[in-house]
Amino acid sequence: MPKKNAFYAQSGGVTAVINASACGVIETASKHKDKIGKVYAGRNGIIGALTEDLIDTSKESAADIAALRFTPSGAFGSCRYKLKSLEANKREYERLIAVFKAHNIGYFFYNGGGDSADTCFKVSQLSETLGYPVQAIHVPKTVDNDLPITDCCPGFGSVAKYVAVSALEASFDVKSMSKTSTKVFVLEVMGRHAGWIAAAGGLLTDHHIPVLILFPEVPFDQKKFLAKVDANVRKFGYCTIVVSEGCHYPDGTFLAEQGTRDAFGHAQLGGAAPVVANMIKDALGYKFHWAVADYLQRAARHIASKTDVKQAYELGKAAVQLAVKGRNAVMPTIERLSDVPYKYKIGVADLKDVANVEKFMPANFISNDGYGITAKCKRYLTPLIQGEDYPKYADGLPQYVTLKNLAVAKKLPAFKV
Amino acid sequence: MPKKNAFYAQSGGVTAVINASACGVIETASKHKDKIGKVYAGRNGIIGALTEDLIDTSKESAADIAALRFTPSGAFGSCRYKLKSLEANKREYERLIAVFKAHNIGYFFYNGGGDSADTCFKVSQLSETLGYPVQAIHVPKTVDNDLPITDCCPGFGSVAKYVAVSALEASFDVKSMSKTSTKVFVLEVMGRHAGWIAAAGGLLTDHHIPVLILFPEVPFDQKKFLAKVDANVRKFGYCTIVVSEGCHYPDGTFLAEQGTRDAFGHAQLGGAAPVVANMIKDALGYKFHWAVADYLQRAARHIASKTDVKQAYELGKAAVQLAVKGRNAVMPTIERLSDVPYKYKIGVADLKDVANVEKFMPANFISNDGYGITAKCKRYLTPLIQGEDYPKYADGLPQYVTLKNLAVAKKLPAFKV
Repeated sequence: MPKKNAFYAQSGGVTAVINASACGVIETASKHKDKIGKVYAGRNGIIGALTEDLIDTSKESAADIAALRFTPSGAFGSCRYKLKSLEANKREYERLIAVFKAHNIGYFFYNGGGDSADTCFKVSQLSETLGYPVQAIHVPKTVDNDLPITDCCPGFGSVAKYVAVSALEASFDVKSMSKTSTKVFVLEVMGRHAGWIAAAGGLLTDHHIPVLILFPEVPFDQKKFLAKVDANVRKFGYCTIVVSEGCHYPDGTFLAEQGTRDAFGHAQLGGAAPVVANMIKDALGYKFHWAVADYLQRAARHIASKTDVKQAYELGKAAVQLAVKGRNAVMPTIERLSDVPYKYKIGVADLKDVANVEKFMPANFISNDGYGITAKCKRYLTPLIQGEDYPKYADGLPQYVTLKNLAVAKKLPAFKV
Repeated sequence: MPKKNAFYAQSGGVTAVINASACGVIETASKHKDKIGKVYAGRNGIIGALTEDLIDTSKESAADIAALRFTPSGAFGSCRYKLKSLEANKREYERLIAVFKAHNIGYFFYNGGGDSADTCFKVSQLSETLGYPVQAIHVPKTVDNDLPITDCCPGFGSVAKYVAVSALEASFDVKSMSKTSTKVFVLEVMGRHAGWIAAAGGLLTDHHIPVLILFPEVPFDQKKFLAKVDANVRKFGYCTIVVSEGCHYPDGTFLAEQGTRDAFGHAQLGGAAPVVANMIKDALGYKFHWAVADYLQRAARHIASKTDVKQAYELGKAAVQLAVKGRNAVMPTIERLSDVPYKYKIGVADLKDVANVEKFMPANFISNDGYGITAKCKRYLTPLIQGEDYPKYADGLPQYVTLKNLAVAKKLPAFKV
């Protein structure tokens, strides 16, 4: 195959380690100059490809590319933009191929979750149909940890570590105050459909912290939950609760949707945490504090898991290695070989098996009472939060890199997204 | 003075570094065995003294005491319990002296904020009146940074670092997403009366982050604020907002008090962050995310400021050194000598000058528009967040110590608090 350029784009919600994957892709591509020319990145994800807004990563210094490994967020910009089906939106797929053709792009590295795996798969299909060959490789990324086949997804381990560390620290705090003041601490974490992130709170039980987890997989039972909280406070003096944003009642209503209205009659968007906290106060009278971690959890590169950073880099690297081997419509994966000591190898999955499949928490990862995790789940989670991988600091703040992100000259007419 | 035991207690909201002060007190006391016998700690703060529930710190291993330096929260328990005036509550002060007398306690180290400085001062006065000599030394601690005389308060630097790091990381995140998704990120931080903690968000401007700070010192002007947010989004594509929990309207109403009611008609306790976020959405239509850090910020020992940890330890140490020199009714302080390079020395303040004085942000620390900090404020804040002082980790989590906290045998009749 003649030498071709590569296109790399970040998709969906960004993470503490997606740039480590970008770093893996760009650094590895530079070691295969016989097959890969330049690596162009999409400015703001796939939208950058549609609008021909390409970033020339060769204009960045090697030091800045290396610094991506330590920088959270999406260095080239990401987007929430799902291409529709080929039938419904052939125009956009054809535009992608036209842009790739105009810039001699033969490799498409798409770094994202389930939706982007699907897009990646479709691009590989269409490129065959249109007779312009593009090798489409998906690089897994999602804090939700819900991609199939791979043992875990880059981004998840660091969020899990953040949640476990934060909940541990806040639990120490509330324990100190519990004699005369706060007795309940509620931490809200991400995870609308799957409870992987909330499950990380279950690692605290090894530190003798009374913690209850509210999973999206377990319909909320207010009476049973309140009895559990009360039992913990009576026994330990305090209770920590980790609630998933996706926690909902049996009828599917999210806890966060309480139908509250502000003074102007507008629906008030709250979080699940204040709802749970106020519910406890009303029923049991315990003083509470609550926190909503939101973006802090997925951006927390300062406390990223070393395992996660390493795997994010390795999967970016593996994607390029698969490409130079001529593979198409695949995704490199983590294949776990053993829990203790933790061993894994890089595997590969066909995108047809990845696209549109969501991996939920296995039932045997959630304890019988529905508020904790099993030993099996702990064995799964523990290796993923192992190790620290601190960024450098200056003047007290992490030295995160902001790239120059210089544009490649356009060659095609404008295109409306 | 004959050899006496010491009493140490933690007061009010705990911090990431109050245990470092405890470590400084206990380790330094052990070097003055000619004057100081045992160090007893109050279980759950001053309540432990009143109820004669004393912890014998000599039963802990040296390694566990040393580990306090790396452990957030209050290792002996704290409490929110303010002794009333001497006139209104002589019974409790007399009980304190009785407990001190029964356990041969001649040194009282009280680790807290403004209220505990006041209590400490009263104990020193009363001990004279009652003819039982107690040297009362206050060890400063408060994330609010509102004690007078001392340049800063242990606990504050670490919260400031947490807020600056977290807001930096979340800003990188929202910037990545802003083309097609979230454009506004709102982080709520502590500080009901003073904006010291929120001010740390102002350090981001050195990283080219468009950030607006909502201080409790500046009455909230919705129209002006929304115009600022809109201008930032139009110019930079996104905007970060750090809102102090104490931010309020000109009439004193907190932003968090919106008079919202849930489905049952109960007042809904929200945070200021969702209120600000929804206000922006309603007026400008920008997609938002918000976070409420709550306890996470003050418990975040994993990202504590090295300067803060060092000063917390040094002030605990200095308190004991003042005691063995015969000083009474004093508090060791940080005296800043220069900003760059940062130099300081340990000073001393009389408690009569500390008690009941609250230090607000100087007007010349807040920028003219009311939404940022001045260069003077940056010079003040920057040294306080310098350096990292990471705890040890095992299995991916920090190794925080939990002490044995063995009780000293009681000698007095029970006392009802």
